[in-house]
Amino acid sequence: MLGRVNHIAIAVPDLSVAAASYRDTLGARISQPQALPEHGVTVVFVELDNTKIELLEPLGDDSPIRSFLEKNPSGGMHHICYEVQDILASRDQLSQAGARVLGSGEPKIGAHGKPVLFLHPKDFQGTLIELEQV
Amino acid sequence: MLGRVNHIAIAVPDLSVAAASYRDTLGARISQPQALPEHGVTVVFVELDNTKIELLEPLGDDSPIRSFLEKNPSGGMHHICYEVQDILASRDQLSQAGARVLGSGEPKIGAHGKPVLFLHPKDFQGTLIELEQV
Repeated sequence: MLGRVNHIAIAVPDLSVAAASYRDTLGARISQPQALPEHGVTVVFVELDNTKIELLEPLGDDSPIRSFLEKNPSGGMHHICYEVQDILASRDQLSQAGARVLGSGEPKIGAHGKPVLFLHPKDFQGTLIELEQV
Repeated sequence: MLGRVNHIAIAVPDLSVAAASYRDTLGARISQPQALPEHGVTVVFVELDNTKIELLEPLGDDSPIRSFLEKNPSGGMHHICYEVQDILASRDQLSQAGARVLGSGEPKIGAHGKPVLFLHPKDFQGTLIELEQV
């Protein structure tokens, strides 16, 4: 089921500081910041040779990463996104195996304009998993 | 400086449960477990198309992931390993930029038989970064 790692997301308290850290200190290529109000985040992508890092800063009061940053004020690794071929088939297979899909269970359109779902971290050793149909 | 993401490491309390979860529930290819007593972990690799996940279970009383699992009993994302061309040049550049290298600052031979260093998570938004020379 799992294809490529599409991205690894890191929640950060200050996106400009984090972006500068990856660009200047670690010498990586980064994107311009993109505000995604419908997802409650502003994002900068760190472009690596085989995948990317998604730096996430909360946007708005209802940001889904706000509680994570309250628990981890310095920031931290937030989720891993894997590509799948058929998100509905993956969802049904996972549900039958007893894994919990977050929210309504219906895919939403993610930050890359493609259908995504999130799986409950308690079912996967404390790791929040995003599935993205490619 | 940063090349490919070599692996994303996830600390887990029970390696056989975690490995079965990635193999059976998520449908991924996994390796046989490898005990690495010199690193204080037993490891299973989840082989993906563009990178790999390293599932880590503590081995021995001095395991470097034991305190992480005390704070995160269900497990969780532990570090990201990036490939670099020249680990000593990277270390010197990072030190000059004010980033802290963990331990003595001298590279050790990592789980893949190559020189590795770890960077202080407080200098990188709460993310523990491993650099591996390839």
